[in-house]
Amino acid sequence: MRPSGRAPDQMRTITMEPDFTVHAEGCCLVSFGQTRVLVTASVEERVPPFMRGKGEGWVTAEYGMLPRATHTRGQREAAKGKQSGRTQEIQRLIGRSLRSVMDMKKLGERQITLDCDVIQADGGTRTASISGAWVAMRIAVDKLLASGAIKEDPILQKVAAISCGIYKGTPVLDLDYDEDSNAEADANLILTGDGKFAEVQATAEGATYDEEELLRLLRLARIGCTQIFAAQDKATGR
Amino acid sequence: MRPSGRAPDQMRTITMEPDFTVHAEGCCLVSFGQTRVLVTASVEERVPPFMRGKGEGWVTAEYGMLPRATHTRGQREAAKGKQSGRTQEIQRLIGRSLRSVMDMKKLGERQITLDCDVIQADGGTRTASISGAWVAMRIAVDKLLASGAIKEDPILQKVAAISCGIYKGTPVLDLDYDEDSNAEADANLILTGDGKFAEVQATAEGATYDEEELLRLLRLARIGCTQIFAAQDKATGR
Amino acid sequence: MRPSGRAPDQMRTITMEPDFTVHAEGCCLVSFGQTRVLVTASVEERVPPFMRGKGEGWVTAEYGMLPRATHTRGQREAAKGKQSGRTQEIQRLIGRSLRSVMDMKKLGERQITLDCDVIQADGGTRTASISGAWVAMRIAVDKLLASGAIKEDPILQKVAAISCGIYKGTPVLDLDYDEDSNAEADANLILTGDGKFAEVQATAEGATYDEEELLRLLRLARIGCTQIFAAQDKATGR
Amino acid sequence: MRPSGRAPDQMRTITMEPDFTVHAEGCCLVSFGQTRVLVTASVEERVPPFMRGKGEGWVTAEYGMLPRATHTRGQREAAKGKQSGRTQEIQRLIGRSLRSVMDMKKLGERQITLDCDVIQADGGTRTASISGAWVAMRIAVDKLLASGAIKEDPILQKVAAISCGIYKGTPVLDLDYDEDSNAEADANLILTGDGKFAEVQATAEGATYDEEELLRLLRLARIGCTQIFAAQDKATGR
Amino acid sequence: MRPSGRAPDQMRTITMEPDFTVHAEGCCLVSFGQTRVLVTASVEERVPPFMRGKGEGWVTAEYGMLPRATHTRGQREAAKGKQSGRTQEIQRLIGRSLRSVMDMKKLGERQITLDCDVIQADGGTRTASISGAWVAMRIAVDKLLASGAIKEDPILQKVAAISCGIYKGTPVLDLDYDEDSNAEADANLILTGDGKFAEVQATAEGATYDEEELLRLLRLARIGCTQIFAAQDKATGR
Amino acid sequence: MRPSGRAPDQMRTITMEPDFTVHAEGCCLVSFGQTRVLVTASVEERVPPFMRGKGEGWVTAEYGMLPRATHTRGQREAAKGKQSGRTQEIQRLIGRSLRSVMDMKKLGERQITLDCDVIQADGGTRTASISGAWVAMRIAVDKLLASGAIKEDPILQKVAAISCGIYKGTPVLDLDYDEDSNAEADANLILTGDGKFAEVQATAEGATYDEEELLRLLRLARIGCTQIFAAQDKATGR
Repeated sequence: MRPSGRAPDQMRTITMEPDFTVHAEGCCLVSFGQTRVLVTASVEERVPPFMRGKGEGWVTAEYGMLPRATHTRGQREAAKGKQSGRTQEIQRLIGRSLRSVMDMKKLGERQITLDCDVIQADGGTRTASISGAWVAMRIAVDKLLASGAIKEDPILQKVAAISCGIYKGTPVLDLDYDEDSNAEADANLILTGDGKFAEVQATAEGATYDEEELLRLLRLARIGCTQIFAAQDKATGR
Repeated sequence: MRPSGRAPDQMRTITMEPDFTVHAEGCCLVSFGQTRVLVTASVEERVPPFMRGKGEGWVTAEYGMLPRATHTRGQREAAKGKQSGRTQEIQRLIGRSLRSVMDMKKLGERQITLDCDVIQADGGTRTASISGAWVAMRIAVDKLLASGAIKEDPILQKVAAISCGIYKGTPVLDLDYDEDSNAEADANLILTGDGKFAEVQATAEGATYDEEELLRLLRLARIGCTQIFAAQDKATGR
Repeated sequence: MRPSGRAPDQMRTITMEPDFTVHAEGCCLVSFGQTRVLVTASVEERVPPFMRGKGEGWVTAEYGMLPRATHTRGQREAAKGKQSGRTQEIQRLIGRSLRSVMDMKKLGERQITLDCDVIQADGGTRTASISGAWVAMRIAVDKLLASGAIKEDPILQKVAAISCGIYKGTPVLDLDYDEDSNAEADANLILTGDGKFAEVQATAEGATYDEEELLRLLRLARIGCTQIFAAQDKATGR
Repeated sequence: MRPSGRAPDQMRTITMEPDFTVHAEGCCLVSFGQTRVLVTASVEERVPPFMRGKGEGWVTAEYGMLPRATHTRGQREAAKGKQSGRTQEIQRLIGRSLRSVMDMKKLGERQITLDCDVIQADGGTRTASISGAWVAMRIAVDKLLASGAIKEDPILQKVAAISCGIYKGTPVLDLDYDEDSNAEADANLILTGDGKFAEVQATAEGATYDEEELLRLLRLARIGCTQIFAAQDKATGR
Repeated sequence: MRPSGRAPDQMRTITMEPDFTVHAEGCCLVSFGQTRVLVTASVEERVPPFMRGKGEGWVTAEYGMLPRATHTRGQREAAKGKQSGRTQEIQRLIGRSLRSVMDMKKLGERQITLDCDVIQADGGTRTASISGAWVAMRIAVDKLLASGAIKEDPILQKVAAISCGIYKGTPVLDLDYDEDSNAEADANLILTGDGKFAEVQATAEGATYDEEELLRLLRLARIGCTQIFAAQDKATGR
Repeated sequence: MRPSGRAPDQMRTITMEPDFTVHAEGCCLVSFGQTRVLVTASVEERVPPFMRGKGEGWVTAEYGMLPRATHTRGQREAAKGKQSGRTQEIQRLIGRSLRSVMDMKKLGERQITLDCDVIQADGGTRTASISGAWVAMRIAVDKLLASGAIKEDPILQKVAAISCGIYKGTPVLDLDYDEDSNAEADANLILTGDGKFAEVQATAEGATYDEEELLRLLRLARIGCTQIFAAQDKATGR
């Protein structure tokens, strides 16, 4: 049995609250159970140096965790003077995932930065970040379309992410912190609205896994992402 | 007339929502109008090296602003690799203010860290931080008292902070961003529950000021802090 | 057709030269075609702070690339003052992979650090690093066994890693730089000697992929790892 | 009684030695008793990025303390790799104070940097820095006027700074180190030649203070600044 | 007797293997006994800011040591976040030495960067680096001449470096690690092909030395450099 | 002719003012013409980690330059966040020179730190630093002897340093900035009171030099150091 009493293929409650803050072009406060991430999408009319002059846009992401988002206080990265390897790995994954559904030519020479700040952590912060970032990006792009700044919708698909893992021998969906810290294997799976994969990352933690187990995780992920896509539709009024 | 239509001695709406997150020993989401700061109080059973072995506690603070708390996106300090001078100045002020009402002997050899993270900025983030930090600290200390970890209440007074300034020649209370960026003088005033000052900082911005003007700012601050003290009482159930 | 003229399931020539340098407890100069990585295994009789006093060991890795390992000179990370996100992501992956086949209790309270320095890069540096690191670690552990410092072999399995990808619509094995920079999807797959997975990372680069394609990449990886395991056996005299 | 035997409203001996070094456009070695600060004013024909193209100038300051300016050796900030929060707070205050008396349009598109390096510390280093920086800036601007580089004097007023505090219950002027480290309240007050305030900073240190006490500190500051203005006139030959 | 059994004026075996790696414009793997340094010469068609627009070139060097080049593992400078004083001192010396034989006008507005990475250390890494860097630079310049990018050979002389020292009272040539760590004096001597000095650095380590001893070290260095020049000729096919 | 009109073997005026500041155990303001360096010697009853428990002491040095010690303002190293390679090279040289005349056993388990801060620069700042550091160290050690903290004088010799160079073909003594920036060769020579060398560093700058020229520089250095030793005796009352 799972510590939370959930069935193996049962997600936590997902909420996606758009416009939690007012300044950003797009904003979404996303919750997967007790995990809560504030995502903002900022549109800037410039691209990074390596993209200049190509007439194409760019999507990037930054990730952070408030020092007391966790059970015990973690050191503030700004005070420490650098971002951890974990932080950098996560923000690279978020950026890559969102870029996988963006047509950079249609976006035009502008950049969207997705800031994902974890307000409260209970497992699955990177997957909640990706799922919420899509909502914030969708809202920001809708404004660009409404204002006429861009002509054609550059977003090709929805994208959602979910964690799965093997916990006490059973593949389970949407790990919370208790499960995550004891799982034998831990996967982050990123799917697009048409059922394809943007990224699969499945890591052994204490026990290696076989192909059959991997396939069962992929199937759980499909169940989860279907629910996330529905929440994304609701949050963006589609 | 003020851009917001407020009277010169009129505060913005103050809200103080305790327990916005679950992990910290104390938590308060404080709003002064559109300025919103999430404050957590973390209790740790250790003190910094310079305080060890004295049987006394310590209170410190850290301050941060989410990159898109502001009208345009600011660079993330963790990515830049250092905290700005402004950030350090503010977090030093917050820590000093909260220490001014704490009896370190009664607190015992433990540390309370107040993390003040600005979710949305519209002027007065440092004063909202201080005012909210007192609530988070009060909640955390109440738990220490309830558990018997400390015997006597170490908090000597409430402490509240408010900004005032001279805007188009008129002293006004609780500056929002529009006023703050155009004020001739700008003051941050920190009062304790018994009507005394913990800190006065009044800075000329384009025009110097005289003693009469300073006194008018001090009087406005008393009006504001009375309302903040009431909000603190309500939030902590006193 | 592949730029190199190789068949889709054809590896580049693998060489693993043990003891290329003399000071380290284990050393392997590994080549996958023109990609060459010097790996050393250093044994130290101490563990990091979070592992102290548990009677267990630790395995960690660091990764670097000589500035002119690549077609154009890259900036030296030591001169820049920090390791890139890519470097950190890779060295975390290497460490995790090697830990997945190590019994930390049998290793005892000591640390093995695997330094993977890329002398020449032509795609697949992280997978060559993992494959070569196993050899360096095996040599170092054999010395610990020979000296009696540890009693039972703590290495549970061999571990090998290989990159695969979808290049011009075809799943291909062991990407070189030309393929890697143009692939539609790119996977790094890490297998243990008993045919299980330690890690699967499959990333869309321009086109998302479906489950069938993922499975074809997994099958290619098995072909590649079989050859790497043979090279590891040969290099370690098994 | 004060440790130094001074009366409550008695300053330490002030000396201001212009041209202590030869390269800078303006220079002043300022002493308040044993506190000695070497200030140089450097004129550069460029302004920081945020000021470019406005036809206006800028004034900024940097502050440092030689490692053995104090009773015990402090770590060198250049060796530590960063400036402390205290250093940044002080140099921001110095810059702000000097800008409050400068007409940036008349200065023209050039920058004056005031480097304040504490040779020996005995309390009041930031106020000595500000008072001496005005002299160095005055000398540098006089050279710009003499050379015809600027036509009209851009300096609007003198500016001087002094510390006051409440020591054993008595408001006292110009705290030395012994008083500073034991004061109940500590204020840095910055006045302009026409008797107005550029900045008031009054901080409780162990005991909060009331409005009456604040007013007594303001009055002491007027006494002190009158003497500093006289020393500035003498040093600049006015 | 020397620990290695060598005669006082006997060098270790020198090997210089050009083209050890393929991407760099010039490359040399140099060995002095067990000391092995991989040097690459990278040609870039730009110069540093302080040289721009003069029609002249620049030669610079960077130095690094793989963490396990030494008997015990050293911390990776990229992970530590800065280059040590020793590293910086050495790379400055290498750059200066190579610049001393380059005619910057004939080189034209381009930069040659010499990356010297120590694969294995046994004393004399800086002198091996300089000697090998000349070979890598020679190869890179030969390509520029062959391609017609430059018309006249800009290299004025060969340059070679060797360490000498006073070990147990006797001046000896080409110190290995055992000697280096116990020498009373330690010199690095850099000679050009015409027998002149580019740099002399002779340091007392535990005992000061007199002029006679210095002269004996200079004479040993001539013996050593003659052999290095021959190895350079052989490696570059002259 | 030299720009200053000095004869080739003529030093600039040397002054050594002890006790320029009050807090340090030893202090010397040293001038070689317009070059002025403030040196303090700080005694601490602890040694760095690598020296602990040996019953021996340590001598180390730090070097800095005030931003406007030079003709044009240089960036403050504390603001830049790191010490330059030049700074590190110089402070390593100063420490090494002073250690060459100290008996660490007699000093006992304590550390002397020599802080050399350049107030005004006109060539020869590193040699002035070394020469003045000896005075500061001598004063500090005399206090340790006077207090009985150490029994026997641990200072073995005086140590002095001087720069020489080849300027327009002529070997000259004690280069000022004009000469230094145009010299064909530039040497820093460090002698002990008994006429031996602690360090010789002679660098070609644009033209290499031969053994005869090196010997002429060594002879000039002897002339200079004789005068410095006399100034050191006078400053320390010997």
